[in-house]
Amino acid sequence: MYTNKTFPLRIILFFCWRELLWFTLLSVAVLAAYKGLGWKFVAIPFLPVATIGTAVAFYVGFKNNSSYERLWEARRIWGAITNVSRSWATLVNTTVGRQQYDDNPDAISRVRRQLLLRQVGWVNALRIQLRRRVLWQEDPTVRSLHVKLVQQQHRQAEEMHSTLEPFLASFELACTDCGATNVPNLLLHAQANQLAELKSRGLLDGFEHASLSALVVECFAQQGAAERIKSFPFPRQYAHFSTIFVSLFTFLLPFALVGEMAKFGEDAVWLALPFSILISWVFFSMESIGDASENPFENGLNDVPMTAICRNIEIDLRELLGDTPLPERIVAVDGVLL
Amino acid sequence: MYTNKTFPLRIILFFCWRELLWFTLLSVAVLAAYKGLGWKFVAIPFLPVATIGTAVAFYVGFKNNSSYERLWEARRIWGAITNVSRSWATLVNTTVGRQQYDDNPDAISRVRRQLLLRQVGWVNALRIQLRRRVLWQEDPTVRSLHVKLVQQQHRQAEEMHSTLEPFLASFELACTDCGATNVPNLLLHAQANQLAELKSRGLLDGFEHASLSALVVECFAQQGAAERIKSFPFPRQYAHFSTIFVSLFTFLLPFALVGEMAKFGEDAVWLALPFSILISWVFFSMESIGDASENPFENGLNDVPMTAICRNIEIDLRELLGDTPLPERIVAVDGVLL
Amino acid sequence: MYTNKTFPLRIILFFCWRELLWFTLLSVAVLAAYKGLGWKFVAIPFLPVATIGTAVAFYVGFKNNSSYERLWEARRIWGAITNVSRSWATLVNTTVGRQQYDDNPDAISRVRRQLLLRQVGWVNALRIQLRRRVLWQEDPTVRSLHVKLVQQQHRQAEEMHSTLEPFLASFELACTDCGATNVPNLLLHAQANQLAELKSRGLLDGFEHASLSALVVECFAQQGAAERIKSFPFPRQYAHFSTIFVSLFTFLLPFALVGEMAKFGEDAVWLALPFSILISWVFFSMESIGDASENPFENGLNDVPMTAICRNIEIDLRELLGDTPLPERIVAVDGVLL
Amino acid sequence: MYTNKTFPLRIILFFCWRELLWFTLLSVAVLAAYKGLGWKFVAIPFLPVATIGTAVAFYVGFKNNSSYERLWEARRIWGAITNVSRSWATLVNTTVGRQQYDDNPDAISRVRRQLLLRQVGWVNALRIQLRRRVLWQEDPTVRSLHVKLVQQQHRQAEEMHSTLEPFLASFELACTDCGATNVPNLLLHAQANQLAELKSRGLLDGFEHASLSALVVECFAQQGAAERIKSFPFPRQYAHFSTIFVSLFTFLLPFALVGEMAKFGEDAVWLALPFSILISWVFFSMESIGDASENPFENGLNDVPMTAICRNIEIDLRELLGDTPLPERIVAVDGVLL
Amino acid sequence: MYTNKTFPLRIILFFCWRELLWFTLLSVAVLAAYKGLGWKFVAIPFLPVATIGTAVAFYVGFKNNSSYERLWEARRIWGAITNVSRSWATLVNTTVGRQQYDDNPDAISRVRRQLLLRQVGWVNALRIQLRRRVLWQEDPTVRSLHVKLVQQQHRQAEEMHSTLEPFLASFELACTDCGATNVPNLLLHAQANQLAELKSRGLLDGFEHASLSALVVECFAQQGAAERIKSFPFPRQYAHFSTIFVSLFTFLLPFALVGEMAKFGEDAVWLALPFSILISWVFFSMESIGDASENPFENGLNDVPMTAICRNIEIDLRELLGDTPLPERIVAVDGVLL
Repeated sequence: MYTNKTFPLRIILFFCWRELLWFTLLSVAVLAAYKGLGWKFVAIPFLPVATIGTAVAFYVGFKNNSSYERLWEARRIWGAITNVSRSWATLVNTTVGRQQYDDNPDAISRVRRQLLLRQVGWVNALRIQLRRRVLWQEDPTVRSLHVKLVQQQHRQAEEMHSTLEPFLASFELACTDCGATNVPNLLLHAQANQLAELKSRGLLDGFEHASLSALVVECFAQQGAAERIKSFPFPRQYAHFSTIFVSLFTFLLPFALVGEMAKFGEDAVWLALPFSILISWVFFSMESIGDASENPFENGLNDVPMTAICRNIEIDLRELLGDTPLPERIVAVDGVLL
Repeated sequence: MYTNKTFPLRIILFFCWRELLWFTLLSVAVLAAYKGLGWKFVAIPFLPVATIGTAVAFYVGFKNNSSYERLWEARRIWGAITNVSRSWATLVNTTVGRQQYDDNPDAISRVRRQLLLRQVGWVNALRIQLRRRVLWQEDPTVRSLHVKLVQQQHRQAEEMHSTLEPFLASFELACTDCGATNVPNLLLHAQANQLAELKSRGLLDGFEHASLSALVVECFAQQGAAERIKSFPFPRQYAHFSTIFVSLFTFLLPFALVGEMAKFGEDAVWLALPFSILISWVFFSMESIGDASENPFENGLNDVPMTAICRNIEIDLRELLGDTPLPERIVAVDGVLL
Repeated sequence: MYTNKTFPLRIILFFCWRELLWFTLLSVAVLAAYKGLGWKFVAIPFLPVATIGTAVAFYVGFKNNSSYERLWEARRIWGAITNVSRSWATLVNTTVGRQQYDDNPDAISRVRRQLLLRQVGWVNALRIQLRRRVLWQEDPTVRSLHVKLVQQQHRQAEEMHSTLEPFLASFELACTDCGATNVPNLLLHAQANQLAELKSRGLLDGFEHASLSALVVECFAQQGAAERIKSFPFPRQYAHFSTIFVSLFTFLLPFALVGEMAKFGEDAVWLALPFSILISWVFFSMESIGDASENPFENGLNDVPMTAICRNIEIDLRELLGDTPLPERIVAVDGVLL
Repeated sequence: MYTNKTFPLRIILFFCWRELLWFTLLSVAVLAAYKGLGWKFVAIPFLPVATIGTAVAFYVGFKNNSSYERLWEARRIWGAITNVSRSWATLVNTTVGRQQYDDNPDAISRVRRQLLLRQVGWVNALRIQLRRRVLWQEDPTVRSLHVKLVQQQHRQAEEMHSTLEPFLASFELACTDCGATNVPNLLLHAQANQLAELKSRGLLDGFEHASLSALVVECFAQQGAAERIKSFPFPRQYAHFSTIFVSLFTFLLPFALVGEMAKFGEDAVWLALPFSILISWVFFSMESIGDASENPFENGLNDVPMTAICRNIEIDLRELLGDTPLPERIVAVDGVLL
Repeated sequence: MYTNKTFPLRIILFFCWRELLWFTLLSVAVLAAYKGLGWKFVAIPFLPVATIGTAVAFYVGFKNNSSYERLWEARRIWGAITNVSRSWATLVNTTVGRQQYDDNPDAISRVRRQLLLRQVGWVNALRIQLRRRVLWQEDPTVRSLHVKLVQQQHRQAEEMHSTLEPFLASFELACTDCGATNVPNLLLHAQANQLAELKSRGLLDGFEHASLSALVVECFAQQGAAERIKSFPFPRQYAHFSTIFVSLFTFLLPFALVGEMAKFGEDAVWLALPFSILISWVFFSMESIGDASENPFENGLNDVPMTAICRNIEIDLRELLGDTPLPERIVAVDGVLL
């Protein structure tokens, strides 16, 4: 997530200098043809191009809107993950083994701590899994794909291991190493399993077990929702044609502007240059803002700040457990909060 | 689901070469009449056509938006099916016969496996049923309809049988063969029936039975939602008129462009040809993108990848059961993931 | 629901021949005044009319969108009714009297059948009630209103009786005859009453009774949602002004087109005739598509196919009960599925 | 709710005659300046005004859409209130004291009747409270505000008393008189209190009490939703600027039209008069339709018909109680249903 | 929340005088160059600028819509907080210790009062926390940030203490002082803890405990939703580019208007001045209305009136407890309700 109020020119240019260069070259070429070579026929009327412009503005608006909704839904999901984690911590902390607490406070506290830290483990495992690049984004050459896949799985397993180490019992940690396909799933299963065990040992009654099980089901729902956004990109037929339409429009623009400016006299034709670049840039920017927001889990500038959210959940839960000192909050670096 | 970042020109042309040809022929004809025959009256003013263009852009935008929402809802439903299947697996695995497990681990495990595999059977049966072509999409000649219907039922029954074979007990499989109208329904009923039986045998208590029954109700809800999208197409009055309006607009376009170009001098009139084709193509493409996305369960390029999702659910559930080796994930072929 | 892919010209003309005639007469009159009488002042500039056109296109787009959402919500409600009916059938069939089944299979089966068929009765009663014309759609002359009301109640009572006969016990049927104001309500009350009776006789335990009661509450919710759409039309201030604005626009159009065409020379003025008719038709069609979709329970071409859905529910439930032969599905007649 | 299909001219003029007069005077003045005084400079180009027109159309469209959603949400809330009331009636009627019914049918029936009539009392109390004018709509002069407040509270207390009299026990009625700030709240509290009492007396078991309590919580939710719409108007920054923009546009319009018409020759300038009035009226109407719909609980023409809904709920519940004769339905007066 | 029907000119100017000044200076400069210096080339054609104008209107409309939805969701959350608080009060008041009430009415009443006042404490703590400025809105210079952070935490702790004093037991109050990171969280945990204690002491049964726990979970959900809106601003890429596009458009406007006016003759050029200011102001206002509404918890003019809502909740709950006199409602000061 970009956290500053405004974007410095440096960042804006970083994302569009290639296109600006192209718009400039094209406009210069058109002007050169018109003025230098005297090819008057490169001047075309503006009205038909404006018609495309309006239709394209509609289309780009639709893409922007949809991308924003994807981003906002992603943030909503991580909000719900925060909520369910806090509810989990509170219900676990107040109900698990309440009747038996005075008999054996240490054992009960240990169980509760285990259930809370595993929840922190789950949110972190989910974060790592979501930030992984999906395979359909890679180059589809089969051989290199296989190599990449193995390398990536290796790297990810290491990151998963080191991240989850503080939160899981050693046997669970081992289990997540040996090639499990979906670590967050396994952790939720472990939560449900421990709940059932606590019920059979009488540390939870039927009502409490049902309430806590419902929270596990909610965790599955939010995990699935996040995975859905990750694995179902903004449909390519919509996304790619938006890019094509904008490219077409910006290509035609200098021709049409030369024509329109020529109406004001031959001296005004030079104004087509700055105008063409400016209008092209506005349309290109609108298009690429949508593009940059449609995938909210890709380590980009506009991501959902999952690392910060995971840390906040850890702080909330450790505070309930009475741990000191609490871990530090994640702060934005160069205006970017991950 | 199309999984590549961009569409190659080949695919784009495949979907629109007929229309491109028509746009070209029409423009050539108009130009020939204007220049060759000197019929100046074929040139009409651009402004009224632009007015239609704006109205049509609105309308097409509305259609695109609605189609996208249908597609996205379809994906959301299959996300929910994934979630409910995982929750089902976890709750079944941790609660069914927990008290009695040590007495007879094999029998309990067998029951749990049955409940999990039947869930995999349900998602696959639902997938096959959704991919079946609905009757109102066929030619409505009654006689041939009847023939087709019988043929189709036969083909589908075979596919259903071979797909479900690994997941169901033989008697259930037999039951799905003998002309049941809605196999997924029967499988959910079988799940509920086994839950009730487990409750009456004391392998589930009231709370657990209620939680698991709620998941079966959720399965009915998601199945019904998918069937609703399948059986209620984007209303024809909206869809068909969108096509009519775009056709009308692209028909008038070359006439209006000849008129507009003529203002720039008789030499510029030839430019009406490329322009007419280009603008027509933009509007036609916008329209047909919506068209291609409105039915997300038809084996098309832009479908929800149900086969891949079903396989992922199978992998998740088999992993919980400890099956090895796990089945392979479905990968995209030529950029299309089914 | 209209089920064919396209509308034949015959149907399109059926809905707009009156307006086409009016557009033609108006345009001819304007042209006659301009050319025949030489009243040059009937030619007005196009730009102000285009401004109205844009505003009207926005407005009509809003109406179309809202009408579509009403239609889609109506379909969603009937989807939910299907889901709740299947869940009801499955839960009833697997839990009612399960412990006592072996003692008296016939009696238990009879109770279950009663509960399932009454559900089919409810969906059909709801359908009939929704398809009834509401009073605020009638001419508001009080006297004739009273007469109509009595006639209508009589006709409806007959239809209700004959439709519900196969699904209800005779005493319930009698009860629905004697002027009950809301038959579906009574049937849901009967369901809840039987549930409570089964609980007090020990054929349902507390959990099962709670689950099934929740389904009855859901039925009330869906029935109420359908009645809400029925009794709260698309607000007239929005709907009627949309019609007024379009009428205004199509009235001004021929005047403006004559002016615009006159710029191309006096010979081109005749083109105002086809253009005026065409553009008027596009705007009129957009407007009337929304109009035709805003009330989804009125026996119209674009209705939710409630009769077909009710039959499908009956087939699903009868299949669970083992009835043979199952009733036939409803098929589209002339492309219309009711 | 306005229930006729169309608005008579009389009603339309009633809402806009002041503005029509203003538009006419302004246009006449502009024309007089241009033609009479020969001030040619009052003619301004149309294009910049059209640019404002497009932007304003967007803005007004947004306002219309939001107002419609507020109105529709309000209707949805009252639909939910109907549903929850019916569910309440059915659950109360079938579960309260079922085991004890045969011992003392009269006492049980009395309790049930009390619970149902109090529900009718709640919906009516909520209606009266919502139709009360909120203070921020009054003139903010503090002194008179205080006076008005006291007067209003007095009037409202009287109306509340007479409306609730048939539904409440006398001691409850007394309680609502003595200055309670939120009568509907007190009634829901009374419902919950009686439920708890019935549970402690064994007339409801834990499951039934939980189900009925959930309905009370739902009532609180719907009441709060209605109060939220009432107390949080469509944000003034959006609403007021919409009015300002439209006023600005309609002010500039005659100047621009004179300029545009002048292009057609000096004789056509007079046409600016009807055009200016017409276009101004279209924009003004669009704006004021949103304005008239944004507050759905203000006794206006476009209100949610709460009186009719409350009466329908009363009829439904009294029919369950077997009361005869049932009260009459509310009918529309002059096309307005309250 | 701004509560008056209209904004006085004074307030409107307060928010835009700087921009009005800038628009004026720019227009004067352009006119001076054109007329004074005779630089005819500063006049540029209007059509390309109008194209940007349309695209920008789309974009600003999207921003306005999203901002409004953020504001409305924020209000919805606080509506839900009101509902859950009332439900909590009613359930606590009618169920906690009902069986034991007659034995020890004072003790039971004290417990209920504690649970209700702590709820009031929670809503107020949440309000204070939301109104705190978030760190990413500060100047990102690290050193001063640290200083500000410490100062702010100090100020906030004081405000929190004095606000919560009337609602909490002294030991809880102490606990919130010593640097807890999230006071509302701790209060909800205290609620859940007391519920569990009441259950273990037999003052709540399993059903009642489950119902009340569900309300605590709902509180967590609403708190999290409010924090989500607070901590995830409207994405900067959308918000900032909207400002850039409008600035660009208003910069080009005077150049284009000079050109357009020049068509009407050199005398009309002066009209570019008022027009340029007016149109620029309309676009700037549209943009800044969205800007001013996107953060609904920042003590701004357009905030959700949380202080008033918290007070209303306190009044509702104290009324149930029978406290007199009830606290006064918060009234708007200068048309602003906080």
